[in-house]
Amino acid sequence: MVRKRWGFIKDPLYGYVAITPLEKNIIDTRVVQRLRRLRQLAGAEFVYPGANHTRFEHSLGAMHLAGLMAENITQDEIEIQSLRLAALLHDIGHGPFSHIFEEILAKSGRNHEDITTWLVQKSELADILRDGGLDPNDLSQLAIGKWEKKGRLYLNQVIRSSVDVDKLDYIVRDSFHTGAEYGSVDVFRIIYTTEPFQGNLAVNTTALTTLEAFLIARVLSFRSIYYHRVCRGVQRMLADALRFADEELGFSDFTKPADYIQMDDYNTWVRLKQCAKSRPIMERLERRELLKCAYTVESIVQDHPTIDLLDKESVRKQIEKEIALKAKVDPEDVHLDSPLLPSVPYRHSSQLDPMEIPGFAYVGKKKLAVNLIELSRVISSLKGYLDIIRVYTTAPLRKRVGKAAQEILGGTPYVSGISM
Amino acid sequence: MVRKRWGFIKDPLYGYVAITPLEKNIIDTRVVQRLRRLRQLAGAEFVYPGANHTRFEHSLGAMHLAGLMAENITQDEIEIQSLRLAALLHDIGHGPFSHIFEEILAKSGRNHEDITTWLVQKSELADILRDGGLDPNDLSQLAIGKWEKKGRLYLNQVIRSSVDVDKLDYIVRDSFHTGAEYGSVDVFRIIYTTEPFQGNLAVNTTALTTLEAFLIARVLSFRSIYYHRVCRGVQRMLADALRFADEELGFSDFTKPADYIQMDDYNTWVRLKQCAKSRPIMERLERRELLKCAYTVESIVQDHPTIDLLDKESVRKQIEKEIALKAKVDPEDVHLDSPLLPSVPYRHSSQLDPMEIPGFAYVGKKKLAVNLIELSRVISSLKGYLDIIRVYTTAPLRKRVGKAAQEILGGTPYVSGISM
Amino acid sequence: MVRKRWGFIKDPLYGYVAITPLEKNIIDTRVVQRLRRLRQLAGAEFVYPGANHTRFEHSLGAMHLAGLMAENITQDEIEIQSLRLAALLHDIGHGPFSHIFEEILAKSGRNHEDITTWLVQKSELADILRDGGLDPNDLSQLAIGKWEKKGRLYLNQVIRSSVDVDKLDYIVRDSFHTGAEYGSVDVFRIIYTTEPFQGNLAVNTTALTTLEAFLIARVLSFRSIYYHRVCRGVQRMLADALRFADEELGFSDFTKPADYIQMDDYNTWVRLKQCAKSRPIMERLERRELLKCAYTVESIVQDHPTIDLLDKESVRKQIEKEIALKAKVDPEDVHLDSPLLPSVPYRHSSQLDPMEIPGFAYVGKKKLAVNLIELSRVISSLKGYLDIIRVYTTAPLRKRVGKAAQEILGGTPYVSGISM
Amino acid sequence: MVRKRWGFIKDPLYGYVAITPLEKNIIDTRVVQRLRRLRQLAGAEFVYPGANHTRFEHSLGAMHLAGLMAENITQDEIEIQSLRLAALLHDIGHGPFSHIFEEILAKSGRNHEDITTWLVQKSELADILRDGGLDPNDLSQLAIGKWEKKGRLYLNQVIRSSVDVDKLDYIVRDSFHTGAEYGSVDVFRIIYTTEPFQGNLAVNTTALTTLEAFLIARVLSFRSIYYHRVCRGVQRMLADALRFADEELGFSDFTKPADYIQMDDYNTWVRLKQCAKSRPIMERLERRELLKCAYTVESIVQDHPTIDLLDKESVRKQIEKEIALKAKVDPEDVHLDSPLLPSVPYRHSSQLDPMEIPGFAYVGKKKLAVNLIELSRVISSLKGYLDIIRVYTTAPLRKRVGKAAQEILGGTPYVSGISM
Repeated sequence: MVRKRWGFIKDPLYGYVAITPLEKNIIDTRVVQRLRRLRQLAGAEFVYPGANHTRFEHSLGAMHLAGLMAENITQDEIEIQSLRLAALLHDIGHGPFSHIFEEILAKSGRNHEDITTWLVQKSELADILRDGGLDPNDLSQLAIGKWEKKGRLYLNQVIRSSVDVDKLDYIVRDSFHTGAEYGSVDVFRIIYTTEPFQGNLAVNTTALTTLEAFLIARVLSFRSIYYHRVCRGVQRMLADALRFADEELGFSDFTKPADYIQMDDYNTWVRLKQCAKSRPIMERLERRELLKCAYTVESIVQDHPTIDLLDKESVRKQIEKEIALKAKVDPEDVHLDSPLLPSVPYRHSSQLDPMEIPGFAYVGKKKLAVNLIELSRVISSLKGYLDIIRVYTTAPLRKRVGKAAQEILGGTPYVSGISM
Repeated sequence: MVRKRWGFIKDPLYGYVAITPLEKNIIDTRVVQRLRRLRQLAGAEFVYPGANHTRFEHSLGAMHLAGLMAENITQDEIEIQSLRLAALLHDIGHGPFSHIFEEILAKSGRNHEDITTWLVQKSELADILRDGGLDPNDLSQLAIGKWEKKGRLYLNQVIRSSVDVDKLDYIVRDSFHTGAEYGSVDVFRIIYTTEPFQGNLAVNTTALTTLEAFLIARVLSFRSIYYHRVCRGVQRMLADALRFADEELGFSDFTKPADYIQMDDYNTWVRLKQCAKSRPIMERLERRELLKCAYTVESIVQDHPTIDLLDKESVRKQIEKEIALKAKVDPEDVHLDSPLLPSVPYRHSSQLDPMEIPGFAYVGKKKLAVNLIELSRVISSLKGYLDIIRVYTTAPLRKRVGKAAQEILGGTPYVSGISM
Repeated sequence: MVRKRWGFIKDPLYGYVAITPLEKNIIDTRVVQRLRRLRQLAGAEFVYPGANHTRFEHSLGAMHLAGLMAENITQDEIEIQSLRLAALLHDIGHGPFSHIFEEILAKSGRNHEDITTWLVQKSELADILRDGGLDPNDLSQLAIGKWEKKGRLYLNQVIRSSVDVDKLDYIVRDSFHTGAEYGSVDVFRIIYTTEPFQGNLAVNTTALTTLEAFLIARVLSFRSIYYHRVCRGVQRMLADALRFADEELGFSDFTKPADYIQMDDYNTWVRLKQCAKSRPIMERLERRELLKCAYTVESIVQDHPTIDLLDKESVRKQIEKEIALKAKVDPEDVHLDSPLLPSVPYRHSSQLDPMEIPGFAYVGKKKLAVNLIELSRVISSLKGYLDIIRVYTTAPLRKRVGKAAQEILGGTPYVSGISM
Repeated sequence: MVRKRWGFIKDPLYGYVAITPLEKNIIDTRVVQRLRRLRQLAGAEFVYPGANHTRFEHSLGAMHLAGLMAENITQDEIEIQSLRLAALLHDIGHGPFSHIFEEILAKSGRNHEDITTWLVQKSELADILRDGGLDPNDLSQLAIGKWEKKGRLYLNQVIRSSVDVDKLDYIVRDSFHTGAEYGSVDVFRIIYTTEPFQGNLAVNTTALTTLEAFLIARVLSFRSIYYHRVCRGVQRMLADALRFADEELGFSDFTKPADYIQMDDYNTWVRLKQCAKSRPIMERLERRELLKCAYTVESIVQDHPTIDLLDKESVRKQIEKEIALKAKVDPEDVHLDSPLLPSVPYRHSSQLDPMEIPGFAYVGKKKLAVNLIELSRVISSLKGYLDIIRVYTTAPLRKRVGKAAQEILGGTPYVSGISM
């Protein structure tokens, strides 16, 4: 199998992205075209008006980077084509408003990666892949970075690791569209210096500065975009709307691919406006009457707590109730938000400690293994988990709820108490 | 009235856009927030995956440029604030899929500018403007560039002229998001060299090269984005879907602002999928099964034809029928598309000949009037109307229909017979 | 011969430019390294402070584009390597201040292309090329676009034609460093759509819009950078300084490559300051006391005049004298400048009419020849020669000389009488 | 004094920079125009071919940012004009090759800041400033951030502090021209959130993420540009050439401003080529035969060592001798390089601890003081001094010297042992 060029797609970041006939066929399916109606950053547009890009263009970008990385590590045309397609398909399992929908999926014990695998195997994609000489099962695993190919486990890390093409693309792309300017990273240098070593994708230490820039850009992007105070407020509202409407609309009642892929941002927005329970939230969103952050504490915790109390719905509810009681407001008006994020990216592979990023260095002609997190003081300072606790409420109650939250939760008295 | 700074909005093109408290209040209305769900370039994303920007961010950008231009021509704070708001509101009358919806509006004898005026006067905007010390009627006229203020007619030209802030913003913004690279124009030079002269906004001849670059960028953008073969095909499909569904869905049956502004790209897309007559088209769009261009001729006509035959529905239908007959296909499968566009932008003002762009030049300390189109050979070469005739059909019929169209309509035999 | 990657060079425009070991050896010669001390746009920095880029980085950029274009038209590794090296070396013959030095070279009947050929053949480059398996004579011809290789004449056009890599690089690069914003051109699209056809490099008509954008960007760059009023004034001063000092410094007395390449911008600037005749000019440049443009007329002449009067030194001198007489100033203070430039780029090849740019179009699977200038109204409007006549003088005499020049030469009374 | 607009200068980073008539007069002096012939990053062009920008455009950029920052903190037009001019002049004291010349200046107990003060007071600048209504003595102090104006000490910090306009400009500008991509920093956000508080310029904690991005970009730029292995090698060669030639050429024998400002990169390069002792080095530079790094260790030291051994010439010489002995090479061929740099920028003001960056936060309407380094884990991880020890030698000796250096100095065996 030799890759042929079907044509080019123009990307505002990379210029011309060449695609093969097989890719063209995969792209023109409903499963992939649906990504045009899934925004990359649901909620962020309320802070960054330019952030209207979708998972469709991100997936094309990831495919492009996967091709460059693949060409750097293998000459096997089938592997290169597979990696490109895996990157193209890695996000197809996302539901409306992307990560916000995860909570709905969780009800039936699934996440968006399970859906990705399912869609590759059970939708029209399977036949097209088979016609193109590829195994849908293998590819469905590679698309989520879990292909059990002996001796080739590192291929998964192109799709899912600390330096995977998903992150390399979205950091730069989100920066471009938001204008947030944290994401100017020399991703090509990382790609050109990454190769398999001792079973893992490893980065040459000569690119350490670039890698640091990338990991820092990622943390800064989390704080200024993904976990931005206002963006999280919007996401919180959307999550509530989904939750309130779920009983009536049955978001998780899908059984066939066709059912699932008919859900996108467009029709979910419309349905949430039609459902009596979620309509008030959507109407507030439509006039930008957002939840206000009344209290926030951000910190890095070195170790992931064995028991994450705030992760439990019941505990959160209880704290909200206490704050409401002290502030003398309706508990419905107090919203506790507490995302927990590993600040150095997810585990590189299931074989590695989550805080390990494999690197290598040449001594003469000998290649030595190096753990990049240990080597870099900047990276190891990022190590740990970014822990943010916020309390949201409506604009008129902001002051009262803020005061009550501070009395109960403690912390610095000013809003921007960021401490990473 | 002195403008105060409420805060900043981050724009990917201009960086920080400062806004006043009054602007903040206007922006956070449903009328303006709705622009978040109206794409700037409906259809273009099928060619340029990055082109997902909306009329919301474009309107903010136009407001920003209007402020810069206003500060250059007046020191009257009320005029500056009015011009900024007029630019912010200039697009609120657009319907779903923007220009595509114009055909529906035309049924009741209106266009999107009529709607803009109506919305400023009759929606919540009127009260907010009044509270801010501005007259909603005046502003509703200024927003479409038709404020009859004696001695200040040139203010309209900030909003509507050959160098208005609408065009200055969209040329650059559309280029940024598509990646099409035709729109790198030094808009700030045009703004800094524009001032009222003899009753019109006029451009200093020292900026002639920049003005030429801008007008050419506009023509190139038309050809490569707005009137791109594939983009027009998508717009054609959306227009058909709207037309087919109108009877059932009654798009033009709105009587109150609230009715109108509930229509946006999101819910119109969803409704078109629900309506039996338009569903097949939407399903084709959702798997990118687009109309194919079987025939195209582009030319510049120097003078607008007094009778534009192809502008008549009945004539178009007749030609489609004849092509179908010759090609032996169903007339439903032949679509004639024939936009007619003045290639040098619309008239600068109602007092001027449509092909006049006023300029001035200093001779010593004396200011002389100059007609920039006459001065510039490049601009005058663009003068006229870009006339494109295309025939679309389905992929399998492309060859047959193309051959028939050429026999009936003539023209060069190859698709890219561009002749500007 | 298979190209190997020696490493990467980081370019601010193209990112990583991969180079081969042979290229590395050529780059690290004195002949090529000297280009670091030849500015790309001598004089332009007095208008655009950022315009300090050199012929060194431009040559690397041209090499990179030559590689992309070569890969698109041939699979012969030797041809690809030769074209890359030819582009790398195409500018090595330039003297100090680039085009300004041409007048000095002309005294001995040579131009910078003759020097390029001579340097490739007679310097250290010859041995390195031979060691790399290439013929220095062939390459010295290819470097100026005049390699007489039967059946491969189109290879020259990669280096020298309307769409050669020299122009493709400098239009974009000069725009980047000046900030002039006329040069945002999708050069990659031109490269990917260019291929040999009927013996010439021809551009697919599908890229016509991009080609128009490129040709227009070139004209606009000429007017706003290369022939900018102030830039030409500086160049005029440098040319005078060279001329005045030549007798004493003997710029054209070089006989060996080593003599020639020791001349660069740095030491020529220093020597011109040391020589009594040129020192006053250099001192004025060092405090930015520039010649002022007192009169300017720009026009397009459709046909190159058979006798170009102003091209004759004696005629120019005579006109300067008459203006001086009428203005009652010293003739030494009147400087007539009259560059004549074909506005559509130089002839595509010696086999073609200078105004022909070969294109092709597909009709079905048949490839038809098309003359792109005829096809495009914009391009044909540019056709002809940009004719600029300017009179420079010192600041205090500006008004008097301007008035006298206008009486003698006629023309519009205002400075920016541009008429393209 | 009200600032008037003389005109605009086009900057590739900021677009149009408006300047006043007084600024125009200052810019057009020999003292400032000379900055056109002082490269911003002497040596870096050997790694980044695009890095040919000069102190001239950097100074204009710093002036522009100073104006924005000044307008944010004061309404006093004289202060604003003074700060703009101080920024414009802050670099005029630099000698050829900028920081490399510092060693020569040190011989007479001066540094480039002393020269800056001297030039403002003693050159033509003094009269022009006086004519413009400003005190040359005050401005000469403000230009180096040491104006003893009671109650206005924070004005100095616009010019010299952790967030001064010098650093804000060069981080972004150096990134632009090198293409190194570490310097995309939202400098405008820092400017808009900086204001005087408790006697110092302080940054609002709401901009903490941006400040972190800026400080990190600075460290990354140091490692990848300013202290890049190869760039330092070139600087080392230039420093040697200056040192070897000083006796003959008498670089420090200047007594009048005119003597000093006649020294620039151009004529120093030429003179170093003429002097027998430095010529061999310059000839090697002209064919890019650079010193090679045979050994490198980089580390952060938390506290500045009270005695910095390697800072002593005699100690360095001794170590070089020992390495040479062990490697069996001529000591002249061993070059120890050991710059010591505070990784968080220089002290914010003489009143503050070097590691303190003042910030403030609002609690309700109350403004609280915050030490930003303490608040930010990322910044405090950078705290300390970047300590790099490198040994350079010629290419053929690289291996032997590297081995000897490692035996004597210890450290990781691979070149890129970066540990920040």
